[in-house]
Amino acid sequence: MLNPIEFFFDFSSPYGYIASHKIDEIAANEGREIRWKPIMLGPAFKATGNRPLIEQSIKGEYAAKDCERFARYMKIPWVLPDPFPIAALSVARGFYWLDDDDPALAKRFAKAAFHAYFGEGRNISAPGVAAEVAAEQGIDAQEFEAAIARPSIKERLRRESENSLERGVFGSPFIIVDGEAFWGADRLWMVKKWLRTGGW
Amino acid sequence: MLNPIEFFFDFSSPYGYIASHKIDEIAANEGREIRWKPIMLGPAFKATGNRPLIEQSIKGEYAAKDCERFARYMKIPWVLPDPFPIAALSVARGFYWLDDDDPALAKRFAKAAFHAYFGEGRNISAPGVAAEVAAEQGIDAQEFEAAIARPSIKERLRRESENSLERGVFGSPFIIVDGEAFWGADRLWMVKKWLRTGGW
Repeated sequence: MLNPIEFFFDFSSPYGYIASHKIDEIAANEGREIRWKPIMLGPAFKATGNRPLIEQSIKGEYAAKDCERFARYMKIPWVLPDPFPIAALSVARGFYWLDDDDPALAKRFAKAAFHAYFGEGRNISAPGVAAEVAAEQGIDAQEFEAAIARPSIKERLRRESENSLERGVFGSPFIIVDGEAFWGADRLWMVKKWLRTGGW
Repeated sequence: MLNPIEFFFDFSSPYGYIASHKIDEIAANEGREIRWKPIMLGPAFKATGNRPLIEQSIKGEYAAKDCERFARYMKIPWVLPDPFPIAALSVARGFYWLDDDDPALAKRFAKAAFHAYFGEGRNISAPGVAAEVAAEQGIDAQEFEAAIARPSIKERLRRESENSLERGVFGSPFIIVDGEAFWGADRLWMVKKWLRTGGW
């Protein structure tokens, strides 16, 4: 039985959004399961002394242009949302709440949340907007809002983020395949080759 | 007449080293000329508040592993040199001294310098070692050492580095194709597609 691929991302990460459109197909082509793992990168940025790319001068201007170009290449919708970046707690918590009962629904919600933010520019950090996105996927908005306010769900996201940092996850997207780590949407070609060849 | 491709790199950059093995082939396949442009990234790092990847905690460990993996994939020699990173002034100055008279020789020297540092771990920041590498390419070592100590050559490298920063070059490798900027060895596939399609 092959190990599942782990796909770590922050809902506030443009390159996470870009990779989210391709990663399932890459896994499926190699007969692998895949686990989506939203995390909060704030603590990792603190640990590495890093900042979101787009906030950095010069590099940030490049990144904004590059995201747009990358999205055009992938033929996926793209806006640079305002506000950006955000602390995407509401949607990440909502994901884990859904994931325990129905991983397929959780993933559908994650895709919808990414689309709402980077495809439509909706501020998914607001619990109300997150619940609205959930409702569009047939999830009860009130139940959703109650769930993401629960201490146990908050704790779950905190734990997932801490665990990922302990495993060396410092950016988004971050993909782990059989213990091998790949960082960045521009490494999907390498993930594909690694899966196909078993590594080199 | 098609524009030449510009290939900016710092001799202290592992990803610059990796890209240097592929970029000429990419240009040649599309019938493009290519100009190699060694620069000093120090000022750009100051401007962007950045640091060399490998110095950053967690991210640095990933980068060290990733460079080795990338080099294995490319089937090129790789050592993590000590000291690393270096201020690669001697070789970058030497490059521009050679480039005015004989661009082909300058490029051969650049490849040899990259190989000496990342293939063999020799400290090319020392003028003596840089001159040794030059001598291995049939260049007079004494002339080389005298040339790189000349104020006009020092000024030349400073100007090239400043100009590149003004044009938005903040990392290595950095490739400009018809005004379009691409950053990173992991974007060579995109450079290739851009050249082939004329952009999207």
